[in-house]
Amino acid sequence: MDDTAAPWREVDVVRVRDGWQTTATDHAATEAALEIRLHGQPFVITMRTPGADADLAAGFLLSEGVITAADDLDTLVRPAMGDGEPDGAIDVALCGPARDRLPALLATRRQVTATSACGICGRPTADALAFDAPALGGDWTMPWALVATLPERLRAHQEVFDRTGGLHAAGVFAIDGSLAAAAEDVGRHNAVDKVLGRLLRAGALPLSRHVLCVSGRASFELVQKAIRAGIPMLVAVSAPSTLAIDLARQRGLTLAGFVRGGTFTLYAHPQRVA
Amino acid sequence: MDDTAAPWREVDVVRVRDGWQTTATDHAATEAALEIRLHGQPFVITMRTPGADADLAAGFLLSEGVITAADDLDTLVRPAMGDGEPDGAIDVALCGPARDRLPALLATRRQVTATSACGICGRPTADALAFDAPALGGDWTMPWALVATLPERLRAHQEVFDRTGGLHAAGVFAIDGSLAAAAEDVGRHNAVDKVLGRLLRAGALPLSRHVLCVSGRASFELVQKAIRAGIPMLVAVSAPSTLAIDLARQRGLTLAGFVRGGTFTLYAHPQRVA
Repeated sequence: MDDTAAPWREVDVVRVRDGWQTTATDHAATEAALEIRLHGQPFVITMRTPGADADLAAGFLLSEGVITAADDLDTLVRPAMGDGEPDGAIDVALCGPARDRLPALLATRRQVTATSACGICGRPTADALAFDAPALGGDWTMPWALVATLPERLRAHQEVFDRTGGLHAAGVFAIDGSLAAAAEDVGRHNAVDKVLGRLLRAGALPLSRHVLCVSGRASFELVQKAIRAGIPMLVAVSAPSTLAIDLARQRGLTLAGFVRGGTFTLYAHPQRVA
Repeated sequence: MDDTAAPWREVDVVRVRDGWQTTATDHAATEAALEIRLHGQPFVITMRTPGADADLAAGFLLSEGVITAADDLDTLVRPAMGDGEPDGAIDVALCGPARDRLPALLATRRQVTATSACGICGRPTADALAFDAPALGGDWTMPWALVATLPERLRAHQEVFDRTGGLHAAGVFAIDGSLAAAAEDVGRHNAVDKVLGRLLRAGALPLSRHVLCVSGRASFELVQKAIRAGIPMLVAVSAPSTLAIDLARQRGLTLAGFVRGGTFTLYAHPQRVA
C-alpha cells in the first residue's frame, strides 16, 4: 500500500504532559476522498478511510436504495485517476432492475456530484486544501495547563449532553480561557457552525485571539471551519485525521488532539502552546 | 418550545442490568431537518438538533465561503412551513458582495437541494421515515448477556483504532455472537456501509438473523441502513437520536443504546432481548 491508500499514516507530533514537551511519532487515521461512479459517470464523492472501497461502494448503494441485492451488482472496478482527481475512485456497473433505473438515477444525481462543494458531502482532496481564506493571525501563546482544561470548561456548558448523553459540543474560548460561545448538536459540524455563526452575527470575526474546542474528533472540515473564522488553534478531545493535520500544517493552525486528563498531543504548529 | 423544537425529548425505555429489565423514562437528543434558504430559495437541508438555527445557518454559510463577515448578512427569518416540508427552515437574505454572488450560487446549489436524497446530506423527516424497504423478519431472541458483550467483541477487531485512536467501527454479528464482518472508517456511516457492502457482495442479504453493532451513536441514518439490509437489531455504544428511535419503532427494529459495562437501554422493540 502506498501512503494514500493506507488506513493510517505516521506523523511527527509533540506530546505535552505536565508541562514537558517531547517529540514523538504517532499514527493518524487516513481521511481521503473516494468518488463512487456508476457506469463511468460520477455519482457521489465521500471522505473515507481507504480500504474496503468496493464494499463501501456496494454498501452505500444499498443504503441509498440504488441496489437491493448482490444480483444488482455486475462489476466493481478501480479506474485509473488523472491529476486533480480525487485520491481514489470505484466504478460500479449495475445489472438487472437496478440497471434499468440507471438513466433516471444519473439524471438526478450527477448534479449532486458536480456541485458537491458542501461540507456535508465531502469533496476532492485538492479542492478541499486549496480553498480561499485569509492567512491566520495569532501571534500569542496559551499556557499548556490552560489548553488542557478547555474540554472540561466546555463540558460545563453541555446542558443537553447532561440530559441525553448523546450530543457533540463546540466552544470558542478567548486566550485567557474565558468562554465566548458554546453549542451542542447531534452533528459535529453543526455544533461548530452554531458557535461560529453566533460569533459572526455578534460581529466578533475574525477570531484571531481565540481557540476552538470540540468534544470529538478533528476532521479536515472542522479545521477548514476554524480557518474560515480566522481561529488559529483547534483543540479536540479525540483524534485528528491525516487530512486535518495536512490542512492545519499548510495554513498555520495549531492543532491539539487527545486533550484528556492533563495531557495532549500537538499535530501542527506547536508554537502557540507555552 | 413544542416537541419538535426542543433539543431533547422524553422517551419510554427498558433498562437492562444484570439480566433485570426495568421500564424508565429517558431523554433522547432531538434530530430533525432544517432547510437553509437563500432569499426564499432552497439551498441545503441538514439534520440538526433544534436550537440556535439562525446561528447554524450563519455559521454554515461562513464555513462554505458564501459569506465572510457579519456585514454579508441582511436578515435571518423563520418562514411558515406547510405540510410535507421539513420540521424547520430559516431564510437568509444576503447583502453586499455576497448578495452579488447569489444568482451564481443558487444556479449551482439548487440542484443539490432538489436531489439531496443521499444519506450524507440529510433530507426531510417525512421522506426519511417513508422510504421503501421490506418488512423486518427476526423471530428470534438474543440473551441480554450476549448483547452486552458485542461492543467488546467488535473492539477486538478495531485494528486501525488501536493505532490511531480515531476511528469508528461497525460489525455484523450472527445471533450466536459470532462475527460475520467488521470495518473501520473515519466516518460512522462509511464503517456501516463497508460491512453491509461486504455481506451484500457475499450474497448474505437479507441479514434477518443478525445484529449490527456500532461504536458510536445511533442516528436515524444508521437505523435506515440496518433496515435496508434486513437487520432487525441495532446495538450502539452511545446514544440514539429521537429520529432513530421513531424510525426503529415504526419499522420493528430492536434498538439498544449505551451498551457499556454490562448494562444497556432498549429504546424500541425489546422483545428480541431475552
